[in-house]
Amino acid sequence: MILPPPTVQWLDDKGKVFRSPGAAASRLGMLDIIDQTRLPEAVHRLHLSNAEEIHTAIKRLCVRGAPAIGCAAALGLAACAQRFKADSPAEFRRQLEETANFLNSSRPTAVNLSWALQRCLDSCKQEQLPEMKQQLLDEALAILARDIETCQAIGKHGLALLQPGQGVLTHCNAGALASAGTGTALAPLYAAKEKGYEIKVFSTETRPLLQGSRLTAWELSCAGLEVTTICDSMAGQVMAEGRVSLVLVGADRVAANGDTANKIGTYPLAICARYHQIPFYVALPSSTFDWNLPDGKNIPIEQRAQEEIFHCPGVKVYNPAFDVTPNELISGFITEQGILLKPEREKTPHRPK
Amino acid sequence: MILPPPTVQWLDDKGKVFRSPGAAASRLGMLDIIDQTRLPEAVHRLHLSNAEEIHTAIKRLCVRGAPAIGCAAALGLAACAQRFKADSPAEFRRQLEETANFLNSSRPTAVNLSWALQRCLDSCKQEQLPEMKQQLLDEALAILARDIETCQAIGKHGLALLQPGQGVLTHCNAGALASAGTGTALAPLYAAKEKGYEIKVFSTETRPLLQGSRLTAWELSCAGLEVTTICDSMAGQVMAEGRVSLVLVGADRVAANGDTANKIGTYPLAICARYHQIPFYVALPSSTFDWNLPDGKNIPIEQRAQEEIFHCPGVKVYNPAFDVTPNELISGFITEQGILLKPEREKTPHRPK
Repeated sequence: MILPPPTVQWLDDKGKVFRSPGAAASRLGMLDIIDQTRLPEAVHRLHLSNAEEIHTAIKRLCVRGAPAIGCAAALGLAACAQRFKADSPAEFRRQLEETANFLNSSRPTAVNLSWALQRCLDSCKQEQLPEMKQQLLDEALAILARDIETCQAIGKHGLALLQPGQGVLTHCNAGALASAGTGTALAPLYAAKEKGYEIKVFSTETRPLLQGSRLTAWELSCAGLEVTTICDSMAGQVMAEGRVSLVLVGADRVAANGDTANKIGTYPLAICARYHQIPFYVALPSSTFDWNLPDGKNIPIEQRAQEEIFHCPGVKVYNPAFDVTPNELISGFITEQGILLKPEREKTPHRPK
Repeated sequence: MILPPPTVQWLDDKGKVFRSPGAAASRLGMLDIIDQTRLPEAVHRLHLSNAEEIHTAIKRLCVRGAPAIGCAAALGLAACAQRFKADSPAEFRRQLEETANFLNSSRPTAVNLSWALQRCLDSCKQEQLPEMKQQLLDEALAILARDIETCQAIGKHGLALLQPGQGVLTHCNAGALASAGTGTALAPLYAAKEKGYEIKVFSTETRPLLQGSRLTAWELSCAGLEVTTICDSMAGQVMAEGRVSLVLVGADRVAANGDTANKIGTYPLAICARYHQIPFYVALPSSTFDWNLPDGKNIPIEQRAQEEIFHCPGVKVYNPAFDVTPNELISGFITEQGILLKPEREKTPHRPK
């Protein structure tokens, strides 16, 4: 099975790439991401080591998808930190926190962003500058390596929900391009492909930025899966025709009660799935659970520019990037720990306070 | 209130336009439509008198919307018939039926198309060629004039559902551009505007061809209504935020039990409206009821070209132009006869057998 080129990795100053902390990664390196705004027309990589550029790349969706954003922010913070001009650990730490806060402001909804940055800050306990830099890079690479493993485990657990020949509908892109590994919602589909299951995937366009028709369809067809692009508005008809027996989506933030923020359009899919009695599962690394929020009411919903939507002059545009699906519409959560019917805090490893 | 330029009318060989049969319309005229594929960038009119061109204009959606298609087909048939080279009434009638059948094949779903063409064929009862031509034109202009009155009546009846300041969501374009008058779903909004109600309209983009953001937003903003464009996938979020208290859509064909074929994406809106307990009304001329179909199962669903949807090379596309909303999700039908809870055959005037 051919996967797309790595979404996010570390590139050192000798041109070697790293995806785990075990290898002797050179500290003087860069965040290396695929520029998703140019897919599928061009496979172009960005090499970034400057906080402004990394902030812009996340905001412009050059890298997107909750797990990938977390990995990119961690490696990006490490790349910036290697270059800090600080003559004391205290000054280094001040710059580190300032940079982390700045990167954290690039996208408001995905909790993995603040989770990864906080984990990097917490990891940096050494008292000497060279060791602090090494620790940061090791932690960022550990987050990356863990994400790859997490995707694998989500794929394995989600496979239990799949049967050969089944029709599965997915929204936006929660695949290899949204993570360092095989993704969240798409990980079970890759696992099924490896088992030889012929899954028929329906991928919504995902307006306004077409992550479904540009990214999901591209990466699944690269890997040889059968994928059909539909407009977001066609999911009801496809369900009514009996072509879909499972809906799999990712998540940007899940509140403690299971209310789930994900790409705009997820919520109506969940309502339609319920109407057709089709199971609706959310796949996510447990770092996407936000235990500080009791429910979805206070999840910040990013509002994006009106230019993203075609509109007549003088006509208003409303462009929320996410919606919140209430827990009652969700059949279960596929995590690296297994399938949960509702979020379980004790199954969340490595969660900072 | 400023309405957009007329969607469909008769243009005679002296350059005069006609929208009713009372005026002495010259028989040597043409179908005159606004080219909706070029809106909102350009207001460009097409003058057609040839069956191939009229068929293409309907198929390419230069004229679209069930009532407007019916009017255009009737005037188009009249324009073609004026030019038939027939030396007997029998030969004239043969050519007339052939042309009507050909025009009827341009779009499969809208029942108004076959309804209007059949009405023209049935009207042509004279035995002399000049009188047959005059009758055809009179009948086509009567269909046009009746559509204008019908829209007015739908607007008046639908107004009873509206209150000042209300948020109303609509899909696709069922407005002035979809009819000869003020439309079906939008007619009550125009009536409300005339009463001074400040209605907040949410207009879906309506993928893949953007009839909502190109046409509905354009015509409503021309008339000074407040309109906000959203992606189709955002309707759930807009409903959850409490911004919408009524959904108004048009219809392309309604079966005898009330199952309603309309632009793809109508069905998921109806499911979401039900989930949020928001009333969902279908506005239509009674010519859109198809009494030959007991329910929606046998409504033909037009499949359109995959080029209409952005897709990666090698990826399949599924592009149904319509979906069917079951009667159970529909609060009522706003017709020129009043608001019906379900279709009532005895309230359908002028329905050919």
